[in-house]
Amino acid sequence: MAKKQLALGAFINLPGHHVASWRHPQSEVRKVTDLSYLTEIAQIAERGKFDNLFFADVFGQQIQENAHSGLKLDPVVIISALAAVTKNIGLTATLTTSYNDPFHVARKFAAIDHLSNGRAAWNVVTSANEREALLFGRDAHYQHAERYERADEFVDVVKKLWYSIDEEALIIDKESGRYYDLEKVTELNHEGKFFKVKGTLDAPSTPQGHPVIVQAGSSEAGKELAAKTAEVIFTAWQTLEDAQAFYKDVKGRLAKYGRDPEDLKILPGAFIVVAETEEEAIAKHQQLNNYITPEVGLAYLSTFTGVDLSNHDFEGPIPDFNGQQVDGTNPNIRSGIVKGIVERKGLKTLRELYNNIAGARGHREIVGTPTQVADALQEWFENDAADGFNIMAPTFPQGLNDIVELVIPELQRRGLFKTEYTGSTLRENLGLKRPTNPHTQQKITQEV
Amino acid sequence: MAKKQLALGAFINLPGHHVASWRHPQSEVRKVTDLSYLTEIAQIAERGKFDNLFFADVFGQQIQENAHSGLKLDPVVIISALAAVTKNIGLTATLTTSYNDPFHVARKFAAIDHLSNGRAAWNVVTSANEREALLFGRDAHYQHAERYERADEFVDVVKKLWYSIDEEALIIDKESGRYYDLEKVTELNHEGKFFKVKGTLDAPSTPQGHPVIVQAGSSEAGKELAAKTAEVIFTAWQTLEDAQAFYKDVKGRLAKYGRDPEDLKILPGAFIVVAETEEEAIAKHQQLNNYITPEVGLAYLSTFTGVDLSNHDFEGPIPDFNGQQVDGTNPNIRSGIVKGIVERKGLKTLRELYNNIAGARGHREIVGTPTQVADALQEWFENDAADGFNIMAPTFPQGLNDIVELVIPELQRRGLFKTEYTGSTLRENLGLKRPTNPHTQQKITQEV
Repeated sequence: MAKKQLALGAFINLPGHHVASWRHPQSEVRKVTDLSYLTEIAQIAERGKFDNLFFADVFGQQIQENAHSGLKLDPVVIISALAAVTKNIGLTATLTTSYNDPFHVARKFAAIDHLSNGRAAWNVVTSANEREALLFGRDAHYQHAERYERADEFVDVVKKLWYSIDEEALIIDKESGRYYDLEKVTELNHEGKFFKVKGTLDAPSTPQGHPVIVQAGSSEAGKELAAKTAEVIFTAWQTLEDAQAFYKDVKGRLAKYGRDPEDLKILPGAFIVVAETEEEAIAKHQQLNNYITPEVGLAYLSTFTGVDLSNHDFEGPIPDFNGQQVDGTNPNIRSGIVKGIVERKGLKTLRELYNNIAGARGHREIVGTPTQVADALQEWFENDAADGFNIMAPTFPQGLNDIVELVIPELQRRGLFKTEYTGSTLRENLGLKRPTNPHTQQKITQEV
Repeated sequence: MAKKQLALGAFINLPGHHVASWRHPQSEVRKVTDLSYLTEIAQIAERGKFDNLFFADVFGQQIQENAHSGLKLDPVVIISALAAVTKNIGLTATLTTSYNDPFHVARKFAAIDHLSNGRAAWNVVTSANEREALLFGRDAHYQHAERYERADEFVDVVKKLWYSIDEEALIIDKESGRYYDLEKVTELNHEGKFFKVKGTLDAPSTPQGHPVIVQAGSSEAGKELAAKTAEVIFTAWQTLEDAQAFYKDVKGRLAKYGRDPEDLKILPGAFIVVAETEEEAIAKHQQLNNYITPEVGLAYLSTFTGVDLSNHDFEGPIPDFNGQQVDGTNPNIRSGIVKGIVERKGLKTLRELYNNIAGARGHREIVGTPTQVADALQEWFENDAADGFNIMAPTFPQGLNDIVELVIPELQRRGLFKTEYTGSTLRENLGLKRPTNPHTQQKITQEV
């Protein structure tokens, strides 16, 4: 049997994951709304045999005079367009369950899965941003427990909609004029706490059965929802030990939902700055950090931690963030991440802190040679901390191109990463099972 | 000055506009969810120099065993994908204002306009279908007046969102680190009857200023909303006189909104079956009608008129539909259309009736040679009944290809239709003005 292979996602954040990447001379920040730019990036990732292109999403961001803030095209539109200019790579878009209807979400991802021949994935998130709520007529965002309860019901309804017209329902016999086998059409009649949905989707079940479900929650409710429904988890860990603990925890929750450990792939984020020599890689990273002004760095830290630091001295000491967060995202996890980085790296000032999270935003940072980067990835992969990684390039396309040119070949030489796409769908490339029609399953269960 | 040119849209309805087109031997009904099929159609239309590809939308359709019913991919996803495989043609998707949020709609069309370099259009509709309501947790659809009131506010909010970050707000000075001119960013603080929206869009104003606004209402409220906000109207008329009356009526309403007659293009639908000889065209049309079984024909008429005809004899007489409609779409207009067709063509049986509307669904049907078709279009165009047409092909791609091969060259020979795209955006190709930023306008008005 072939050696277990890394699953790799290319996490796209334009013009780069580093907060000041837009100021880099090579940055193509003026092109973030151009299809040619997005196409170039997607095709670089596909050349690197990445399994997946991953587009996060958040809206309602505060526009800051000195930052590339609040400028982002709708990721569903982006991956729809990229379906037409790529052949093998998976296409993941984030869509919040907090301010959407299940029908619209089911319909969009079904369409993308059809048009891409089975390469669509939906990253299920909940909105924890006050400013997102204000765009949808709410004065406050949903509280954590309610968000997850809503997300749970949302995903359930979407999955049922995806199978409301089973692909086998399509008889399409031109001669007799019979189009549908109505036995294989299931009209939903869902009445839950959050949603009431009666009817069918207008697309048949898709090339992947249904699009892959991705998730990013690391809270207790998030882990439980992921164990129940997710097929890929995107997560942020700094140390091997923390990543291992999370991996073991989540994989251990699958059995109670009748799932196997390999039904859910865990991909921690990895921010990578790579160069032929270590000195060169460090210099590249330093160059990016040099573009962070104190104002931007403190604003960034404030957003990240949920604590207003705008009046702090950037050369001053790092306060204890624990328990101070006003933002609802995930204070304990965020403050834990910050604390871990501060202690492990012996950081003293706020400037040192923002320099250490301005690229990866709490994800692991790997700066070094192709060998060093590959070593760092391999260590986690071979020690039950990760099934692969969601790779974060500091700049696009250049930073991603460096990874494809330098890191991917090293991983391939080690037999850790494929040299060609093996499946025709994202699901196949990730080694995920094809789901069964929940309605058929239900009927069978009822009959038994 | 060059002769006035027809504006032509290709109205896409797969696998064809004719209700039984899926049974045609050439029909590619199995491919309606394939991007290759959609791409082929889009590229045929672009080869024909059509200004626009138009995707209607409706969901919640009743699945009928013997009809291509309720199978349709999300048009926003479709036009996003087609943006990547076309260069000049406009891309219009329908999106209802009844079951959506202005923010999502603004964001999606802004993204498509950016990625397509200015070729996006939004067809603004309201949902009048009971079954659509049930998919969104409502027991009944909104009543007519409320729908239009909601649509009016919806479009207003969307337009303001489109300009919340004016393109001139983007300074993006890498050297100084200044990204935005905050003077040109306008945070909305909208509180209306239907929507409360606080914040900005996360895309700057688009290559067209904003996407083109299309509309299809022919009711009193629909005409008024169109006069206020639409730039293209898609409408259905059977006779020159009716089309002229509508044209004059709507164009006459523009002045009170400070608009010129040419700020709104009126494009009636035209279902075209064309062949080298008239006999051949009639035979082609008849062949399609032969695929309509009485059951499908009566179901189709029932949906169209809103009156249940399933137990009627298809060889029996045509009832008077006036005032009988249970469906909320637009009973008076629909029954008026039916009455007009019945009288003008001297139809006697329900079969004759469904044969006469199964292709065009109430739009004008033109069956004949290239010369006859061009004559029919030219007559309306030159007599103040139309600025162009939304062309409906009986089958795709074949029926559209016939129109591109036979009708378009005849229109070009007559100097009625362009031989090359003249503008780089849909707005330019249609000869529509670039809109001004409503926030700037407001500020100027306030200062004066």
